[in-house]
Amino acid sequence: MINASICTIGDEILIGQIVDTNSSEISKALGAIGVRTTRMLSIGDDHQTIIDSLAGELSRNEIVVATGGLGPTKDDITKQALAELSCSKGWYEHPGQLAKVHEILSSRGLEVLENNKAQALVPDKCEVIVNQRGTAPIMVFRFPEERFGHKAVLYSMPGVPYETIGMLPEVIKDIKNNFTLDNINHRTLMTYGIAESALAKLIEPWEDALPEDMHLAYLPNTVTGVRLRLSVYGGDPAQNEKRIDEQIIGLKKLASDYIYSDKDDSLQNTVGELLRKHGKTMSCAESCTGGLISELIVSIPGSSDYHLGSVTSYANSVKINVLGVPSEIIDSVGAVSAECVEKMAEGVRKLTGSDYSVATSGIAGPGGATPDKPCGLVWIGVSSARGTHSHKFIYKNDRKRNMERFAATALNLLRLEILESEEK
Amino acid sequence: MINASICTIGDEILIGQIVDTNSSEISKALGAIGVRTTRMLSIGDDHQTIIDSLAGELSRNEIVVATGGLGPTKDDITKQALAELSCSKGWYEHPGQLAKVHEILSSRGLEVLENNKAQALVPDKCEVIVNQRGTAPIMVFRFPEERFGHKAVLYSMPGVPYETIGMLPEVIKDIKNNFTLDNINHRTLMTYGIAESALAKLIEPWEDALPEDMHLAYLPNTVTGVRLRLSVYGGDPAQNEKRIDEQIIGLKKLASDYIYSDKDDSLQNTVGELLRKHGKTMSCAESCTGGLISELIVSIPGSSDYHLGSVTSYANSVKINVLGVPSEIIDSVGAVSAECVEKMAEGVRKLTGSDYSVATSGIAGPGGATPDKPCGLVWIGVSSARGTHSHKFIYKNDRKRNMERFAATALNLLRLEILESEEK
Repeated sequence: MINASICTIGDEILIGQIVDTNSSEISKALGAIGVRTTRMLSIGDDHQTIIDSLAGELSRNEIVVATGGLGPTKDDITKQALAELSCSKGWYEHPGQLAKVHEILSSRGLEVLENNKAQALVPDKCEVIVNQRGTAPIMVFRFPEERFGHKAVLYSMPGVPYETIGMLPEVIKDIKNNFTLDNINHRTLMTYGIAESALAKLIEPWEDALPEDMHLAYLPNTVTGVRLRLSVYGGDPAQNEKRIDEQIIGLKKLASDYIYSDKDDSLQNTVGELLRKHGKTMSCAESCTGGLISELIVSIPGSSDYHLGSVTSYANSVKINVLGVPSEIIDSVGAVSAECVEKMAEGVRKLTGSDYSVATSGIAGPGGATPDKPCGLVWIGVSSARGTHSHKFIYKNDRKRNMERFAATALNLLRLEILESEEK
Repeated sequence: MINASICTIGDEILIGQIVDTNSSEISKALGAIGVRTTRMLSIGDDHQTIIDSLAGELSRNEIVVATGGLGPTKDDITKQALAELSCSKGWYEHPGQLAKVHEILSSRGLEVLENNKAQALVPDKCEVIVNQRGTAPIMVFRFPEERFGHKAVLYSMPGVPYETIGMLPEVIKDIKNNFTLDNINHRTLMTYGIAESALAKLIEPWEDALPEDMHLAYLPNTVTGVRLRLSVYGGDPAQNEKRIDEQIIGLKKLASDYIYSDKDDSLQNTVGELLRKHGKTMSCAESCTGGLISELIVSIPGSSDYHLGSVTSYANSVKINVLGVPSEIIDSVGAVSAECVEKMAEGVRKLTGSDYSVATSGIAGPGGATPDKPCGLVWIGVSSARGTHSHKFIYKNDRKRNMERFAATALNLLRLEILESEEK
């Protein structure tokens, strides 16, 4: 099996100002072609550290994908370090990348500065993959076996995620052309509404009976629920897929109440696919989730086919005047109540004319709590042609995480309502 | 200066199914007490790899903070590896953590299973910090100087972000009690609406004149804009703050048009603080941003003081019936137009009674484009007592990133409108 290391260069990662999202995308793309990521490493903008660390990763892995440190500004010094690591004797200007620099800047109406032009200058020991999305090229350094004890290739990519992810297919293509690759089969199932340890207990007999070469991993996530990932390394991919299919049948017998997808999918996409399948529409009325449920749905391309819109009724006046919640409800039982979310759900369904609707009202925290309405309390209402109902949940997280859990729980209730209405 | 390494353990990170958000939070907390993070490393759930990698990090750093691999399920093997690394001779059950396991599970109405109880069992060479937010304890291993050539402490923390971040202050407290720490001063300024290279050119004379011990970093982010971070290591913290203040004055002379905050703050928070300062309210009408602008505002604790609500008018019927956009506008110039967003902004301001409003309508992509309305096109309208105006932007990203940039640009226009209205 071919091993890879992913190395992120830049002080901004090390001091914690940027969360590294590139590495997980690179790792997923490598895994899909059967390259195993053995390590991910983040280091700072320091000449000798870059050289030593990359040499270390190259001595342990056939492939190293490095990102970052290639900007036009003075603090980006990766290219100098790569020149030394690769024993380059000089520099050359890559005409394809230079043309791209001019194209990109002129399309934005910007002047081409000297520091922009310098982006196309690369060490003579590298090949260039022209970056179609930015000014810094992808540099490919191929090291002979005698250097690190095995064939090794270093890909240096820009660190801006739009460029890294956009150009990743070109790097993957180069890897496929230059290495003989093994196979990895992964299958991920999504669950919602059960804790990791309870799920582990529930499926223990099945897990204990798994074949030796199948590996099960639990990936808990308080927002999207626990993911289960079944992996087989090596062997025949088609045969492995079949063997995984067979195991999944056994797993579903034990845990079907909690499994909402047997691909690595989101709750919002699952809801969207159900609506599309049945030709139905939805809307939402949000208070404590602030628009998040609607945004999650709108993030799906083509969601305009089933999502009509939403009202964020953050102020009570909007609940009353726009959604038609009777002011007596707010005065008597308050906005965070079964009565209020049911009227909100009915109100937005009527306002938009949707088939389904979901509504939230709760206390995301840290302020706003009372003795009988603690932080983390949420009421969620669901409305459809079958009627309207509501449910109460209490989560104990910070504001942002509470909002995310409220939204996920609302999407799950909406999913169950659609299933009940359309498929039972 | 005391150096630290942050090490994340778990196959789920390496195969890219989880984005590591803990490391940046840990690094920020370390930086704030003057501990420099030199490396971040992610490794898989493999016994020997865990031992070798942690030993390697401990030999290079005084502090190692490891997260993950401590769950109750069979794939979590970190604790065994730590027992071997620390040359522990046996295990002990920590009564405080065991009580916490019982407390947490019973508060959720769950049975305490054997695998839950085992969470309180730890190697005899470690001290325990009781995890107040979860069942797996924080384990502290203190190594004598002769082991790694310097005093070294390994903190093993659970990997669930709610627990890691929640318990981080206890780890920081332990570090402060056990190490003599240097100082780091960081200052971050936020800019919006200028590219990294143009900003670098604009402030070049200032940057070139910076004192030797001040380090400037550019942190480009296509959504929030380029951040500028000025750092001084060592020296007297109060003196350094003053020296940074002086430099900031010079920087602002060159780039004040683009700087929206001289702390590490978000556009939404900047908007919120302006509204609070002037006692004004806002609302939004969103089409292509789907609720994101409202959600960003609601994410701020206390935003109910100034945010009244929003309408996501994803379907044209909602634009017409809820926001009062004349159907002739949609029929003649379409929903993605100056006319439409201006009517949306006015409509939601009237509907909610807010002082300010902002509205978006655009093509987030990948579908929905026409020759004269390409993907990435957005119209943004802003309305206030001064009147209503609209602006057009074109971004070239994927759907999710486009939505984020539309929302950020809308927040920036809203910010400028409030500044114009209230402070000029």
